[in-house]
Amino acid sequence: MNIILLSGGSGKRLWPLSNDVRSKQFIKLFKDSDGNYESMVQRVYRQITEVDPSAKVTIATSKSQVSAIHNQLGDKVSICVEPSRRDTFSAILLAAAYLHDELGTSVDDVVIVCPVDPYVENSYYECVAKLEASVKQGTANLTLMGIEPTYPSEKYGYIIPENNRDISSVKEFKEKPNIKTAKEYLKKNALWNAGVFAFKLSYLLDKAHDIVEFSDYRDLYVIYETLPNISFDYALVEKETSIQVVRYSGSWKDVGTWNMMAEVMADDIKGKAIMDETCENTQIINELNIPILAMGCKDMVIAASGDGILVSDKERSGYMKPFVEEISTGVMFAEKSWGTYTVIDAQQGAMTVKVSIRAGEHMSYHSHDYREEVWTVVSGKGKATIDGMEQVLCVGDVIAIAAGCKHMVEADTDLDIIEVQIGESIIADDKKKYEIER
Amino acid sequence: MNIILLSGGSGKRLWPLSNDVRSKQFIKLFKDSDGNYESMVQRVYRQITEVDPSAKVTIATSKSQVSAIHNQLGDKVSICVEPSRRDTFSAILLAAAYLHDELGTSVDDVVIVCPVDPYVENSYYECVAKLEASVKQGTANLTLMGIEPTYPSEKYGYIIPENNRDISSVKEFKEKPNIKTAKEYLKKNALWNAGVFAFKLSYLLDKAHDIVEFSDYRDLYVIYETLPNISFDYALVEKETSIQVVRYSGSWKDVGTWNMMAEVMADDIKGKAIMDETCENTQIINELNIPILAMGCKDMVIAASGDGILVSDKERSGYMKPFVEEISTGVMFAEKSWGTYTVIDAQQGAMTVKVSIRAGEHMSYHSHDYREEVWTVVSGKGKATIDGMEQVLCVGDVIAIAAGCKHMVEADTDLDIIEVQIGESIIADDKKKYEIER
Repeated sequence: MNIILLSGGSGKRLWPLSNDVRSKQFIKLFKDSDGNYESMVQRVYRQITEVDPSAKVTIATSKSQVSAIHNQLGDKVSICVEPSRRDTFSAILLAAAYLHDELGTSVDDVVIVCPVDPYVENSYYECVAKLEASVKQGTANLTLMGIEPTYPSEKYGYIIPENNRDISSVKEFKEKPNIKTAKEYLKKNALWNAGVFAFKLSYLLDKAHDIVEFSDYRDLYVIYETLPNISFDYALVEKETSIQVVRYSGSWKDVGTWNMMAEVMADDIKGKAIMDETCENTQIINELNIPILAMGCKDMVIAASGDGILVSDKERSGYMKPFVEEISTGVMFAEKSWGTYTVIDAQQGAMTVKVSIRAGEHMSYHSHDYREEVWTVVSGKGKATIDGMEQVLCVGDVIAIAAGCKHMVEADTDLDIIEVQIGESIIADDKKKYEIER
Repeated sequence: MNIILLSGGSGKRLWPLSNDVRSKQFIKLFKDSDGNYESMVQRVYRQITEVDPSAKVTIATSKSQVSAIHNQLGDKVSICVEPSRRDTFSAILLAAAYLHDELGTSVDDVVIVCPVDPYVENSYYECVAKLEASVKQGTANLTLMGIEPTYPSEKYGYIIPENNRDISSVKEFKEKPNIKTAKEYLKKNALWNAGVFAFKLSYLLDKAHDIVEFSDYRDLYVIYETLPNISFDYALVEKETSIQVVRYSGSWKDVGTWNMMAEVMADDIKGKAIMDETCENTQIINELNIPILAMGCKDMVIAASGDGILVSDKERSGYMKPFVEEISTGVMFAEKSWGTYTVIDAQQGAMTVKVSIRAGEHMSYHSHDYREEVWTVVSGKGKATIDGMEQVLCVGDVIAIAAGCKHMVEADTDLDIIEVQIGESIIADDKKKYEIER
C-alpha cells in the first residue's frame, strides 16, 4: 500500500500536552504489545505495517513536525513538508506529486490518504487494504471509507450510500447534522465520513491539472502558497460521480479531546502521581518532575506539563479552547531533532533552559544578536564549537557565550546542559544559523 | 499582655504548601484590611496588637522557623528557640524562663499561652484579655479559654465547667470523645479545650521547680533535651485544682486541613489560575510559574508548589497524611533569612537552584566538601566573596566555585542567581560555615 498520512497542525485541545510546536499525535500515551509507550503516529505506523509489512508511508506535514517525526519513526517513513499552511486539497496534491516525482511511484499505483489521529483496531487498516483492492478493480474513480455510526452524532459529516452492502456507490454527502437529522440518516444506512480516500495516482494528478497549473512536485512546492485553500472533499470528492464507499464496522475513536484520550490511554497514571482509593474514572498524565496527589477525584482528567496544569471534569474538557487561548505562556518544552529543550525558569531579562542532546546528535551552529548564554554541563560528554574553536566538554565545564558569538554542541554521550540566557529581549527569532567551519 | 505564641513544628496536612522546613503558619492566604496577603502568624500578631497595642509577643518555636518569623514580623516579636523538639510543657517552661531571665518580665506579671493556628475574630483576643484580668484578680492559679462548641466534635478535648457562667471553675477534663459522648458533654455546657492558658509567671516557675531541677533560662536551654517530653495539660493543667475557664462564643476555626483552610482563605484563586464557569466551591493556590486551568471542579482544592500538586475533594483532603509521607521529594522551596531558595531542576549528579537575595541581605560564608557550584547572575547587583576575595557582581557574571572553596553573596539590589550544583552526592548537610574575613 502507498499511504499518505495527513499529520495536521498544532492543536490546543489536548493542552497542556499539545501546544504550538507539539501536536497531539506525538504525545506518548498508548502502549505497544511489549508495553513500551508509543504516540499516535507511532501506533498508526505500527498498525499499518502489521497489516501490510511492505506498506510505504509518506507523512504530509508542516516543517514544525519534521523533528518529532524523525525522533519517533526514524527513516522508516517519507516526509512531504508543506512550505505553508493550506487546506487538504493542496496538501494531498503536494504529497501525490511528491510520491510521483520524488519517490518514483507509478501513476497506475493506488494511493490511500488517511488521517493520523483516529484510535482504531488493526481491522481498520484491513479495511484500508480493501479500499486499495477495490480501486485496483477500477469500479470507481474514488473510493472512501465510511464508519458505521455507533450513535447519531452531530460531530461528523455523513455519507449516504446507495445500499447497505460492504461496498456501495455513494448517493450523497451530508454536512454535520443536528441530532434529529442524524437519526434519520442512520435509518438510511448512513456512514460517518472518516476522511480516508483511495484513488489511482493518475486520477488525482489529472484532476489537479484541471484545477491548478503546475509542472511537477518542485514547481508545486514553489507555488504552494498560491494554491487554492480548499478541502479535498470540496475540491474533488463532492463533485465526483464515479465514487464508492467501503463500510468499516470496527472500533473507531476520535481522540481529539481529553475526554476521549483518557478513555483509550494505556495507563490511568503516566508520570509521578498517586490517586487515593476514592478516585474514580480519573486519569493523570504528569510530565513535570514534581508529584501529583489526587484525592476523591471523580470522572476527571489531570494533565501537567511545562506549559501548565489542567484539572478538568472529563465532560467539560471539550470546552477548553477559549480558556487555553487566554493562557498565553511561551512554549516551555520543545522536541528538537537532537533532543529536548525545557524552560525551567523565566523572569524579566533571563531564561533558564535545560538542554538535553542525544548521543551522536548536535544542534545547529548558530548565534544570537541580543542575548548571551552561559552553559554549565551537568551530565555527559561532548564537544562545543565556539567561533570556530572546538573544545571538549565534561561535567562541570562552563562556557560563556557572548551575543554574536557562533556556537554549537555535539554530544558524545547523552549530554545535559543548563543554559542561562540573559538579554533584554529573549525571543526564538533571535537566531542566525551557519555552516560548521572545519 | 505578655503572650507566648506556640508556633509548632512542620506539618504535612497542608501539603504541598507546608513541608519539613515550611510550616502552615507562614503561608500567606489571608488578607489584612488593606488587601495585602498575610500569613497565619502575621494575622495573629496583627489581631493581638489591634486588641492591645502594647502587647508583648514571644514566639516559642524551633530553629527552622526563625528566618520565616524574621521575614514576616521583623523585630516586632521576641523569639524563644527550642534547641530540640519536646512537648508543650518544656516549650512553655523554656519560654516562661526566657521572659523572666532574658526579657526581664516580673514574676507577678500574667503570661498567656496561645496556639498560633486558630482562625478567629478579634473578639478571641478580647477574651484572652479577659483571661489576663481574671488571673490578676487571683481567683485561681490557672485560667483557660473554653470554646463554645458548634457541634459535637470528636476532634477536640472537652472542659466540663461547674456552671455555664462566663467564668466558671473547671469540674473536669475529658479526652476526645466519640460523637455519642460528645453529645452528652454538650448537654453539660462542655467547652472545647482551645489550648489557651493564663497564669502568673511565678506560678509556672514555682511549679516547674517541683518537676525539673534548673537554675535559669540558660541552664534550661542547655539541659533542654533531658526535660520531660510531656504536654502542659498532662504535667500541670489536669492536676491543678485551682483552675477556671473563660467561655468564648465567637467564631473559631481550626485551619489544620485544606478543607478548613479553603473556607477561610481570602481569595478563591491565588496565583496563576483560571476556573471555568462550571467550577463550584473550589479554591486554587498556585505558587508555580505555570498556569492552572480548572474546569467543572466541584468542592475541590487545588494547591501547587515546587514540592508537588494536590488535586483533592475537600472532604478527602483531611486524609492525605499517609500519601504525602509516601511522596518523598526533597525540599524544593525554602524561605531563608536572606531571601528564597527554589529548586528548578534536579537530576542524578546535579541540581539547579534559583537563589533570590533581598537587597541588603547576604547568605552565610560557607563551603561544600562534595560539590562544586556555578553561579550566573540573572538580575540585580551585589558582591561575592570567594576565598576571602571580594568581587563585584552584575547581570551576566559567572562564578565557578570549586568544592572546598569558601563563598557568599551580598545583595546591593534584589539579586537573582541561577546556581548549578554538581557532585556525586548533593545533600543539605554538606555545608561548613565560616566567619567573614575582612
